[in-house]
Amino acid sequence: MNLKRVGRRTVALSVPPSVRSCACIGGKFEGQGPLGSCFDELGENSFFGEATWEKAESAMQKRALSRALDKAGLKAGDLDYILAGDLLNQCVGSAFGLRDFGIPFYGLYGACSTMGESLALASLLIDGGFARRAAAMTSSHFCTAERQYRMPVPYGSQRTPTAQWTATAAGCTILEEKGQGPYVTHVICGRIVDKGITDANNMGAAMAPAAYDTLSAFFRDTETGPKDYDLILTGDLGELGHDIVRDFFQRDGIDLGERYQDCGLLLYDREAQDMHAGASGCGCSAAVLNGYVLPGLRAGKWRRVLFAPTGALLSPTTSFQGESVPGICHAVCLSAEI
Amino acid sequence: MNLKRVGRRTVALSVPPSVRSCACIGGKFEGQGPLGSCFDELGENSFFGEATWEKAESAMQKRALSRALDKAGLKAGDLDYILAGDLLNQCVGSAFGLRDFGIPFYGLYGACSTMGESLALASLLIDGGFARRAAAMTSSHFCTAERQYRMPVPYGSQRTPTAQWTATAAGCTILEEKGQGPYVTHVICGRIVDKGITDANNMGAAMAPAAYDTLSAFFRDTETGPKDYDLILTGDLGELGHDIVRDFFQRDGIDLGERYQDCGLLLYDREAQDMHAGASGCGCSAAVLNGYVLPGLRAGKWRRVLFAPTGALLSPTTSFQGESVPGICHAVCLSAEI
Repeated sequence: MNLKRVGRRTVALSVPPSVRSCACIGGKFEGQGPLGSCFDELGENSFFGEATWEKAESAMQKRALSRALDKAGLKAGDLDYILAGDLLNQCVGSAFGLRDFGIPFYGLYGACSTMGESLALASLLIDGGFARRAAAMTSSHFCTAERQYRMPVPYGSQRTPTAQWTATAAGCTILEEKGQGPYVTHVICGRIVDKGITDANNMGAAMAPAAYDTLSAFFRDTETGPKDYDLILTGDLGELGHDIVRDFFQRDGIDLGERYQDCGLLLYDREAQDMHAGASGCGCSAAVLNGYVLPGLRAGKWRRVLFAPTGALLSPTTSFQGESVPGICHAVCLSAEI
Repeated sequence: MNLKRVGRRTVALSVPPSVRSCACIGGKFEGQGPLGSCFDELGENSFFGEATWEKAESAMQKRALSRALDKAGLKAGDLDYILAGDLLNQCVGSAFGLRDFGIPFYGLYGACSTMGESLALASLLIDGGFARRAAAMTSSHFCTAERQYRMPVPYGSQRTPTAQWTATAAGCTILEEKGQGPYVTHVICGRIVDKGITDANNMGAAMAPAAYDTLSAFFRDTETGPKDYDLILTGDLGELGHDIVRDFFQRDGIDLGERYQDCGLLLYDREAQDMHAGASGCGCSAAVLNGYVLPGLRAGKWRRVLFAPTGALLSPTTSFQGESVPGICHAVCLSAEI
């Protein structure tokens, strides 16, 4: 059997799956940022009509999937699979948000790389002949993440300058075997990379080596370089991580140039909103992808985008036990045409 | 494109992937049970040479993968993917256990159904032409699960009669595109099923409806019945859940018979060890599959086995917030011959 591969790690999809629809839901702060108009719905507060923040996160996933189905003119029964995960312990944002749809469900845990992981696996399931349509989605919520990973929000803890702000957002992409695009042409699965960073308030530095590992493998495998893409987008490295990735490539003599952006630097107004090192969370790259990148590809703003969200595979327990922070980066190549 | 499907939800693999090797690691109690001789390695205590139980769980995954690679005569670089997850918050058992191997990693969260989910997705990646070889694995640890979900072990909390005992075990299966078998011939992805059970100490009852949903869909899709399998094995429903699944089928006029077993009822000696309603945890079905079922298929003990591990998609937070317990069941059909 010939593998559908180019190079060592990259899959070249034989019939690139097409984006049928996409949707994203955001919180109040996300609506006040530069991408505010990109959201399908914005919450007036952080509760989305629910009694707890965890239930609010599930409600966002439910709304994101419902919106994406509506925009596609599809019912839940038209989806063969849904692939989703989130940051909450035991990924309950996804499980409780999606339990009423009755769609076959593969639960994922890729931390903040989940939008990339879900998009990659949904593409593989379609290209492999196992599904006609599949949804990829994820979410995060500032208040659920703060109380789980750091301190309850009402404590009003001081944040370090390297800290990022977990986005309150959910995003959903519905892929299908044929359509008008944009298309997923390539996917590459990340490896766990741990360079020994132990500061859990500097996720950008912890995840940057994983982004470099995946992106450099992708360029090598596909015999392309940064100039072959109109936009190269990591997930939520923020200001520090973004600079580190740029430095790593500079050492290899490769200039990523202005086309290299990070979702964490796009979601909020860096001056007016002051989110320190930028946005983070699964919902950050999910919102930027589904609210900004996919519509931009459709509108002809870009032709080819490399979307490479990163995740930090730590837990509060591993940090308490003195462990470093392993990172991972799953990337997909999106193209307006095939 | 013709989907590789039979019926609505079941995938019939066009070139059934073959089990190249399998391995499992267990704790002290698991070694004292009726399947004690099935383990590749047994820990003398619950620490596996590490300073904490969480690190011990990662060490078990590391050992299970290393053993499976050794038995197959393979190096880490020979695997195209590893698919793994566990019960720990943020699935750190897998991330820290597997970080040193450098194998492309798709992290999963399927709670105690993870051995089924990982086996299913690994099979699909191989059959889809994306991988030559992939490893599927998971783990659980009694002490990490107790302190995360219930009470720290040293408290010596009283357990209810419906409670199950989380297995301290890890299991790994390496699949490849061609080989001597046993083979994965069919996979079916579970749906989230929530019948409103709110007792987090009665997981069997919460997960049984999901097992019934998946198994009945599988029989319908493949036009088979229980008699077509030598062994039908749910993951960790324990005594109560096992009886409930049998009752559900009885109402449909289907007798599951003696061939219907549950990994949770096989791992420990029900009288001498008194684990209440039985074993549970991702490691329970992983150990029974890799230590007992796959070697049994190879040895000709059975020809066709339906392996259907179940997961409860709750977290302590969702229970505190009054939520019910959603369940899921991912199944794969294993055959000694094709």
